[in-house]
Amino acid sequence: MQKKLYVALVHYPVLNRHSEVIASALTNFDLHDLARLVCTYDLPRCFIVTPLQDQQRLAQRLIAHWVERIGKDLHPHRSQALQRLKLVHEVKDAVADIEEEIGISPQLWATTARSINGSITWRKARAIVEEGELPVLLLLGTGWGLSQELMDRVHGILEPIAGASGYNHLSVRCAAAIMLDRLAGLEK
Amino acid sequence: MQKKLYVALVHYPVLNRHSEVIASALTNFDLHDLARLVCTYDLPRCFIVTPLQDQQRLAQRLIAHWVERIGKDLHPHRSQALQRLKLVHEVKDAVADIEEEIGISPQLWATTARSINGSITWRKARAIVEEGELPVLLLLGTGWGLSQELMDRVHGILEPIAGASGYNHLSVRCAAAIMLDRLAGLEK
Repeated sequence: MQKKLYVALVHYPVLNRHSEVIASALTNFDLHDLARLVCTYDLPRCFIVTPLQDQQRLAQRLIAHWVERIGKDLHPHRSQALQRLKLVHEVKDAVADIEEEIGISPQLWATTARSINGSITWRKARAIVEEGELPVLLLLGTGWGLSQELMDRVHGILEPIAGASGYNHLSVRCAAAIMLDRLAGLEK
Repeated sequence: MQKKLYVALVHYPVLNRHSEVIASALTNFDLHDLARLVCTYDLPRCFIVTPLQDQQRLAQRLIAHWVERIGKDLHPHRSQALQRLKLVHEVKDAVADIEEEIGISPQLWATTARSINGSITWRKARAIVEEGELPVLLLLGTGWGLSQELMDRVHGILEPIAGASGYNHLSVRCAAAIMLDRLAGLEK
């Protein structure tokens, strides 16, 4: 059975290096990598969240190129993957989309590179995803991470990815790969 | 204790879409992402393997920009990470470098998206890495994967990353993230 684990790659509201709230720019690689990850773990959808119209047009062109136009024949696996992306203006639009599809509002889980008291352990998070009762929308922040306003609205915050060092500066696409493998990978 | 797990991002000899042996082009994102991953898991080094001189110059410029020049002050964490990259012409140069450093020749492990009889399970591979007796050099293929000639020379081939679907087309940087987390991540 397909897991009720949804992903949102959030470009607004996120922080810049000075901890100011901004809308970050899309990165082509992130869209491809996230699409291929949700396909690998057979997750229903990855939302690309940006309120900027020019960025939405850019993403639409990229997706259409691979899903409908010349890229489809050249790289059929990319077409298959990018079909799982969905553009939305805000996180609440992603929530509404999930509600409309399955009739339940998802739990919002934030991810952060910082250690926070009361965060959800990976073991607990995986158990919730495997149980499948509660749909979950995993929020991945671009730039310097999700804004405080958004962090204040979530139901839970995942533990940071503990490597073997104190270094915690992974790219969002690599962090997403590790998180989805921990939450939905077959191999444990 | 630092693990004796080394990584090589191989641009030659790899396959193109027609299964011909080629030297693939470097991807800036891969270099940054791999550097940040080996830093996160505190692995000694990631070798960037390419025999092409223009590609080596490109990589040298990129690394110098972040490690020594203006990027160092702007993004100190990138400088810290990119210091762990080392450019080499061939896989055997990476092997020689490790031998010179620790006095033992590493086991070569290949990675592939295909299922192969007798492959090393993730559990076994992690146990070997944790035990730390044998140094390991993990070969990651760019393009359409490592050439057969290279696959024939390795000591072992890792199981493919099993997601929940049959889809096996991850980017090399996302595959690397998942592999290193499975082999060297704290959380299990």
